[in-house]
Amino acid sequence: MLKSIKDSPLYLIANPGSIAFLGASNNVSAMGTNLLMSVRSMGYKGAIYPVHPKEDRVLELRAYRSVLDLPEIPDLAVVVLPTRIVNQTLEQCGQKGIKQVIIVSGGFKEVGGEGVNLEKELKKIAAKHGIRILGPNGIGVANTHLNLNTTFAPHEGPAGYIGLASQSGSFITQMFNYLSRLGLGFSTAFSVGNEANTDIVDCLEYLGACPNTKVIALYIEGIRRGKAFLETAKSIVPHKPIVALYVGGSEAGKRAGFSHTGAMAGPDRLYDGMFRQSGVVRARSITELFDFCWVLGSLPRPEGPKVVIQSHSGGPGAAAADSCGRAGLQLPALSKDTLSKLAPLVPHTGSLNNPVDLTFSRNPEDFFSEIPKILLEEDNTQMLLIYFFTPPAVMRRALAQMGLSEEQIVETSKKLIARNCDLIAGLLEAHKKPVVAYTFHSMNDDVIQGLMERRVPVFQGPERAARALRAMVRYAEMREKILSGSGGAEAGKRQSP
Amino acid sequence: MLKSIKDSPLYLIANPGSIAFLGASNNVSAMGTNLLMSVRSMGYKGAIYPVHPKEDRVLELRAYRSVLDLPEIPDLAVVVLPTRIVNQTLEQCGQKGIKQVIIVSGGFKEVGGEGVNLEKELKKIAAKHGIRILGPNGIGVANTHLNLNTTFAPHEGPAGYIGLASQSGSFITQMFNYLSRLGLGFSTAFSVGNEANTDIVDCLEYLGACPNTKVIALYIEGIRRGKAFLETAKSIVPHKPIVALYVGGSEAGKRAGFSHTGAMAGPDRLYDGMFRQSGVVRARSITELFDFCWVLGSLPRPEGPKVVIQSHSGGPGAAAADSCGRAGLQLPALSKDTLSKLAPLVPHTGSLNNPVDLTFSRNPEDFFSEIPKILLEEDNTQMLLIYFFTPPAVMRRALAQMGLSEEQIVETSKKLIARNCDLIAGLLEAHKKPVVAYTFHSMNDDVIQGLMERRVPVFQGPERAARALRAMVRYAEMREKILSGSGGAEAGKRQSP
Repeated sequence: MLKSIKDSPLYLIANPGSIAFLGASNNVSAMGTNLLMSVRSMGYKGAIYPVHPKEDRVLELRAYRSVLDLPEIPDLAVVVLPTRIVNQTLEQCGQKGIKQVIIVSGGFKEVGGEGVNLEKELKKIAAKHGIRILGPNGIGVANTHLNLNTTFAPHEGPAGYIGLASQSGSFITQMFNYLSRLGLGFSTAFSVGNEANTDIVDCLEYLGACPNTKVIALYIEGIRRGKAFLETAKSIVPHKPIVALYVGGSEAGKRAGFSHTGAMAGPDRLYDGMFRQSGVVRARSITELFDFCWVLGSLPRPEGPKVVIQSHSGGPGAAAADSCGRAGLQLPALSKDTLSKLAPLVPHTGSLNNPVDLTFSRNPEDFFSEIPKILLEEDNTQMLLIYFFTPPAVMRRALAQMGLSEEQIVETSKKLIARNCDLIAGLLEAHKKPVVAYTFHSMNDDVIQGLMERRVPVFQGPERAARALRAMVRYAEMREKILSGSGGAEAGKRQSP
Repeated sequence: MLKSIKDSPLYLIANPGSIAFLGASNNVSAMGTNLLMSVRSMGYKGAIYPVHPKEDRVLELRAYRSVLDLPEIPDLAVVVLPTRIVNQTLEQCGQKGIKQVIIVSGGFKEVGGEGVNLEKELKKIAAKHGIRILGPNGIGVANTHLNLNTTFAPHEGPAGYIGLASQSGSFITQMFNYLSRLGLGFSTAFSVGNEANTDIVDCLEYLGACPNTKVIALYIEGIRRGKAFLETAKSIVPHKPIVALYVGGSEAGKRAGFSHTGAMAGPDRLYDGMFRQSGVVRARSITELFDFCWVLGSLPRPEGPKVVIQSHSGGPGAAAADSCGRAGLQLPALSKDTLSKLAPLVPHTGSLNNPVDLTFSRNPEDFFSEIPKILLEEDNTQMLLIYFFTPPAVMRRALAQMGLSEEQIVETSKKLIARNCDLIAGLLEAHKKPVVAYTFHSMNDDVIQGLMERRVPVFQGPERAARALRAMVRYAEMREKILSGSGGAEAGKRQSP
């Protein structure tokens, strides 16, 4: 663990006061220009110095002929130049005294042949000048809390709490929109590229110390420093969850990763062991990676694996029960006390087994208030999973039949939905037990949006919800083991039976 | 196999010329009223006769005091009455000569106790009058090609090609919106409820013969007639794929299913064997059920398990390779001929391994035309999986920098997107190999919508795409075995090794 985030070699890469930009021009189809546009459009407040051999101005900013001509030593240089001139440019950065450089350019180790030598030379230059490089063949950094985004697409959505260290730049840029649709966002995201002299472990260390980061996501094609990873992760897990997606374990993933960043992948089992020992929750897809971060970053820790399912339909209830069962969660029976409290609220066609299936509820508001309240008061409920199907068309149709005008329907629907979502959010707050929802509605549905705005995660389909709940349980268990000091011993036992 | 769909006991349930409606009123919050509103709002053309003890008109339709007073014998009666008067009403239907009845009312076998006896009596009355019942405790039928929908939510979206037989009514109603968002829809969907005297096998038989149905989806909590299921499925599979979700295999799913429809679930392994023997593709979630139907209903059959991945980003390529590997697909190397055709189109930072990773493409249109064309011409390509990330914000920004007005940007974007989507759809048509895409964009994105409108399935995340491709391979393999007569033998071998 870092004593201070400022001790991280990545601190000034993620928090620069000023940036030199090498490779942007006025040609809007060029990669470098796009990166500079991203930095500017997000409203970064520090000085930006484009460096261009011919232009006097680049995107309305004053440009400099060479790094050596800059009026100050910038905290960071971003290099998006043709491969063949990257190394000489790095040498100039060194001469100027720049100590942090993001190299976006590819064509190094990942292409093999001459690229391998070029990267060796690059590292030598960096070592000579004491430069820390993020990259090459990466896409830089996004620190949403500083309005900094060096990647090629504009940032979308609010600043968030997910810290990301990624061996793929795409999983930063190309997730902005995805995450913002769920009301999520990155705190700081690093694209490590070929990891010339800073790697995913350095990023992990930074994110562990980052006050804006509540949960850490890792996209891994191959870890170079296994022992350092294990120790760093283990020191972070007690106070911050880490979720990892490792794609190098399958033969196909391994080959693809090597072409991508030259990463040396290891057997799946090895990584499984490393994640288990260090308390890292493993995800099996990008979808899971962010699903898990969502619940781990926003919900209270569950006390155990017992889930109660609330549904108004038998099939979705049964499918959720099946998903929970397959995910390794438990569905406890409800106590007599709870059953007697529920009885008056559930029609005779409903079921008070777990899933609690209301079928048709006479008072629709019970579904959002009394019923989840009773279920959360139950001792056996450690997590609550609610199925939502509240089709706006049905609500509108009912209000129309009641004689309301089009305007009144819109107004009334809006109020009803806000009130119901407030009720659920209030219960989550009051009971400190994880509450998640699932649906097959569009995520743009007003009820779904209302829940997500109030920090109730909503998943498309029960299998995603069940696996996210399981990830929370897994984290709580592994954290407990590390805190009690038995994590290493238990993992050690497994390795030498 | 049915000789004619008209021989099915479900024919007049799914294709009635006239319907009596028992249990609708002018109270818009009543279930029965909602069902009648659904039938009317979809534009069903046959006669509708509400039966109500007091009202003269129900939702502006002339109402009758009793079934016995109806001016004709309707093809179908829909019963949504309180449990206690269902049986006496069925007796009246029988006296009137009605031979098809949908019973939505619950409170029978699924609640145990007195409900079990009520259902026995119900079956006796049906037998006496030769009535075929769909239900009780079901939600009826949706035949979108006849504009008929007896379920409680209005139908959304176009008529489709997915036939559904479901032991949950929710998975009809609550999927209308879900499917329409993917450009999909049901042909005919049956909710079998407690299966008093027609069951999921009868529905399967009907859907096998239904000309509007290209693929059959089954939601199963427990099958009563195993042998009939096996034989029926096996006779359909050679000409129509069947996909099944079985939720009764886990302990939790089993208990939930029993509370829901009184179904007796069996061990997972038993169902696995039955599906394998009969050539039914198994899905593990509702999401998979419809993902699999999507590709199986719209794409040509693959010749084998070899997938080529086309990406412009390394990480999404590697993640897709990993997903394909885990799903049991193969990633073949490309031939020399293909490599030499691709070389001039791919920058030196890209990779021509499979995944084909373009990194940054100089001519964006190549991604939609030349590159997939070359990949589809390759003999080793049996399926093509393409990653799409074409952020509208980036395109708009580039066009704005070129000096286009807001209006011109909208116009130009629209044209470019339509052209690119046409190119992909043209390749799918020309090469008769499955092409699917994946993305992390919103499904509302114009490119994604454009592709889906042209029948190119697009999935959120590569894992869903990979598993859908695997389902196609699985179907092709099982179909082949059944056609060559070795399906039963192979399955038999597995059972007695």
